[in-house]
Amino acid sequence: MHVGILLFEEFETLDVFGPVEIFGRLKTHYLVCFYSEAGGLVHNSHGVDVLSRPLGEIMGGVDIFLIPGGYGTRKEVNNEVLIEMIRTISEHSQYVLTVCTGSALLARTGLLDGKKATTNKRAFDWVVSQSDKVFWDRPARWTVDGKYYTSAGVSAGMDMTLGFLADRHGVDFARKSAWEIEYDWREEKEGDMLPEN
Amino acid sequence: MHVGILLFEEFETLDVFGPVEIFGRLKTHYLVCFYSEAGGLVHNSHGVDVLSRPLGEIMGGVDIFLIPGGYGTRKEVNNEVLIEMIRTISEHSQYVLTVCTGSALLARTGLLDGKKATTNKRAFDWVVSQSDKVFWDRPARWTVDGKYYTSAGVSAGMDMTLGFLADRHGVDFARKSAWEIEYDWREEKEGDMLPEN
Repeated sequence: MHVGILLFEEFETLDVFGPVEIFGRLKTHYLVCFYSEAGGLVHNSHGVDVLSRPLGEIMGGVDIFLIPGGYGTRKEVNNEVLIEMIRTISEHSQYVLTVCTGSALLARTGLLDGKKATTNKRAFDWVVSQSDKVFWDRPARWTVDGKYYTSAGVSAGMDMTLGFLADRHGVDFARKSAWEIEYDWREEKEGDMLPEN
Repeated sequence: MHVGILLFEEFETLDVFGPVEIFGRLKTHYLVCFYSEAGGLVHNSHGVDVLSRPLGEIMGGVDIFLIPGGYGTRKEVNNEVLIEMIRTISEHSQYVLTVCTGSALLARTGLLDGKKATTNKRAFDWVVSQSDKVFWDRPARWTVDGKYYTSAGVSAGMDMTLGFLADRHGVDFARKSAWEIEYDWREEKEGDMLPEN
């Protein structure tokens, strides 16, 4: 399956590379590729510059479309060209996964209307303000509603990705993937931490 | 502090980007930069292409030099030019951190001779074969010996990085860093899983 990872300036490093580590190791099942609005190098303030292909190449959808979070989402929710591309690709993709504030971008497309979703609890109020038609699930660490998987902050994206593998390949397969990277997978969807501030 | 991250072809994605997420968020304390033997884009089989600067720029050392693991280490242990660069940079750096099979590269420099170190247990015998002068600590999840921090596989590198923060800034600081990325930090150095095969 083709895993298309969305990048934009100021994406959150681990929102992207946690799931990439998990999918990337499973070479017989998944092929990871990075995309951005214009293609080329995409930068974030952790000093990372990653090469990407233009989103225009996958307007017909991918098998799995992953939308990370990060400070860049604050700007990109108002980027109508990008939101329209995300809408088209998501509509034509078999699965759409969001990590952290990536759900704000997906919410802006309208595709989460009437669906259950979650996000980083420290950015919860801002994300919720992007759409009042989504059933925002505050206590969830990650949610599944049809083809849409959404998760809380950073590491929760790895937990969701392992949950996605469990749904597709069985829980033992997912546990083995976690074991191989010595990762303590929190398997339960519920029970996210509440914000301290 | 300047955090120099070593890249080489077929580095392990999360060995690099786990610590980068942790250091990268602490912008008032740490500045992350990527380096490779020749500079330029460095690729791995998870589909990642990251831009790097040439290692020649930091032959005088950095504050923190991080050496990741990955399949690429199998080739690079025999790359005498790279091993010599790693030796010089490590000698002149304040701290040297290795993740997973990154300790094989550091062991080849001789700088770990007489020192305690560890690595990924699934690659343990191969890493140990790189030097019989290192005190390889099999049960350890990560070790500290003077300025050298070495860790077991992938996620253990994040645990070690948080342990490094705890040593420098106190355990509450490190716990807050883990909390911010919703990461379950395993704080204990000992008790690594043993290999199943």
